[in-house]
Amino acid sequence: MTTGPDIRPAITALPNSLIGVVANYGRGRDGLIPLWFGEGDVPTPGFVMDAAYQAMRDGHVFYTWQRGLPELRDALSAYHRRTYGADVGTDRITVTGSGMSAIALSMQSLIDAGDEVVVVSPVWPNVFASIRIMGGVVRQVPLALENGKWTLDPDRLFDACGPRTRMIFVNSPCNPTGWTIGTDDQRRIMEFARERGLWVMADEVYSRLVYDGGLDGSGRAPSFLDVSEPEDKLLVINSFSKNWAMTGWRLGWVVAPAEMGQIYEKMIQFNTSGVPGFVQKAGLAALEQGEPFLEEMVERCRTGRDIVCSALESLPRVRVQRPDAAFYAFFSVEGAGDSLKLAKRIVDEALVGLAPGAAFGDGGEGYLRLCFASSPECLSQAMERLVPLLR
Amino acid sequence: MTTGPDIRPAITALPNSLIGVVANYGRGRDGLIPLWFGEGDVPTPGFVMDAAYQAMRDGHVFYTWQRGLPELRDALSAYHRRTYGADVGTDRITVTGSGMSAIALSMQSLIDAGDEVVVVSPVWPNVFASIRIMGGVVRQVPLALENGKWTLDPDRLFDACGPRTRMIFVNSPCNPTGWTIGTDDQRRIMEFARERGLWVMADEVYSRLVYDGGLDGSGRAPSFLDVSEPEDKLLVINSFSKNWAMTGWRLGWVVAPAEMGQIYEKMIQFNTSGVPGFVQKAGLAALEQGEPFLEEMVERCRTGRDIVCSALESLPRVRVQRPDAAFYAFFSVEGAGDSLKLAKRIVDEALVGLAPGAAFGDGGEGYLRLCFASSPECLSQAMERLVPLLR
Repeated sequence: MTTGPDIRPAITALPNSLIGVVANYGRGRDGLIPLWFGEGDVPTPGFVMDAAYQAMRDGHVFYTWQRGLPELRDALSAYHRRTYGADVGTDRITVTGSGMSAIALSMQSLIDAGDEVVVVSPVWPNVFASIRIMGGVVRQVPLALENGKWTLDPDRLFDACGPRTRMIFVNSPCNPTGWTIGTDDQRRIMEFARERGLWVMADEVYSRLVYDGGLDGSGRAPSFLDVSEPEDKLLVINSFSKNWAMTGWRLGWVVAPAEMGQIYEKMIQFNTSGVPGFVQKAGLAALEQGEPFLEEMVERCRTGRDIVCSALESLPRVRVQRPDAAFYAFFSVEGAGDSLKLAKRIVDEALVGLAPGAAFGDGGEGYLRLCFASSPECLSQAMERLVPLLR
Repeated sequence: MTTGPDIRPAITALPNSLIGVVANYGRGRDGLIPLWFGEGDVPTPGFVMDAAYQAMRDGHVFYTWQRGLPELRDALSAYHRRTYGADVGTDRITVTGSGMSAIALSMQSLIDAGDEVVVVSPVWPNVFASIRIMGGVVRQVPLALENGKWTLDPDRLFDACGPRTRMIFVNSPCNPTGWTIGTDDQRRIMEFARERGLWVMADEVYSRLVYDGGLDGSGRAPSFLDVSEPEDKLLVINSFSKNWAMTGWRLGWVVAPAEMGQIYEKMIQFNTSGVPGFVQKAGLAALEQGEPFLEEMVERCRTGRDIVCSALESLPRVRVQRPDAAFYAFFSVEGAGDSLKLAKRIVDEALVGLAPGAAFGDGGEGYLRLCFASSPECLSQAMERLVPLLR
């Protein structure tokens, strides 16, 4: 093996995460403020940790149910009823080791070599990789920035669907743009998908992180569950990570047609063989007792958004939209050019870690992503350092 | 979607685990003794749980290193030196969410549609599935039972390798047979693989569970690491599950050529995005303080083996080999026929849960697998129920 590892060409071709490139460049620098990843600086609430430890002591340390503990799946069904007003039966719910894992298992189940997935971009980059690992082809449909607002033209999405298209992927509220799709567009997409026999994968992990009540004041973003039937070819991805500061716990779930249950059962068996029982019990505690924490989290992010966006809006070279959801500022800097270079320069000169827009696919170059889920103090300090550099 | 979920034909074709079929058939029956899965009845040691909880409290609840905490990878390197006398650098070690996950990520990296993997069987069935998910083709080479001992003919293995062969898979000590490959055969296989440019995947998760000191008295089974160079196309799969009663924790590792590091980094990012930091800290505690527990575990399994095998050996219709390693009795029952039917009958009539041999591929039909990692009391009771039925 003198010429590098002998691996699949599709894997060699996978680009390294550009976020990782910047993080590797900057990690360990004294005093650096890291705002490059999709997480804040609040640790998981103590009652969640305590629930995990208690569950270990209670014996949840053996092999467990592939699709998740029955009591967690029941609690997720109740959570959907309570929060989304959606009647999602336990038989439609599968617990996974993160939203990422739910996406990967779904792509393994659905995408054959040459199948195409139409993806609304810019979007967090792991989605592209999960398609390409299976030999699938990504077709990106970038949002347009119209009157300062990120906007999807559904007709462009439909035009991108051809004979090999197998799935439409929509992440809303969107990482990195904060773009949130409305109910009418969701309905049009579901109708189109039904007509064409396509799958829709809806990544809704930020759906509770909405500001000022969300688009319709309901306190959550519109969900594809609002416009679908249980038997629709719809997969809704969700996660405990962002709502309850559980990024490191690797716990998520997927809502799917009931018939997918046996498929996920197998795919989990053959990939991860399930999620630790005590991690699932921690998730159960978060669902049952975590609403006050989530409210605080949303408030913290709203404060963070306002600190960051106010500072950015004061800069003539910067264009930014104050997002209604998710916890990122995605902004462009006039004349800045290459976003990876700029992100590295910001590490060097401002000791702030940002994600380069080029990481997020078509429509992302020229932008930077800043995660504002951190403390007001931390964000204020970051902006004090950034503003002179971006002025 | 009126005709079932519209998924990849390769996934539809994956059989359900026959172990799962029996477990679903028997689960929940009052008084049933479950010996069908590959785990015992001893919970994880308390100091491992405490280490996990302390790590949560110390903040290991955020996104972490894709390839594992540096301190855990260092400790695994030291463990290899201490236990295997192998000089395995940290750069060759990747932490994964179980041995299963290490296998799945490796297959994703290496197996293209149509690639063949030659697998020594009978073997635990998930391996077959991880190949087929990638469109790969399984070629089984069954062990022969010669003079009451499971035996591999390496020439049969080599004859099974053709132009599309990409990998040889060897699980030793073997689940379910307990078969343990010797150093000479390992050397022949490595030489053959080098010559043909093939990958070797060695599943060595039972390598510490050897009885009476193992084949050579070293207290561990021969490892492919003994007969290989760091740059060989060799992947050695390992796990915390069996050694330290951590089946439910989902923590394993893989030793690979250093150049595979960047590949695993990506594949983990795009599949699971890493293992919880606090689970890794628990693994670190197991490595550092877990040798006495492991010694007790081996002693417990040896006692279990002797209880089970003595009872089985007394039965004229039963053929069983007292295994030197792993924690399974794999035995045949004369005239019993279909192993799935027999396993269900044993559930019904003896309230004991066993795995049907047919689950383990070619050479497995006609056998039953019993996991003897449970308490002597539990196993004695199981044998009291089984003996009349198998007499």
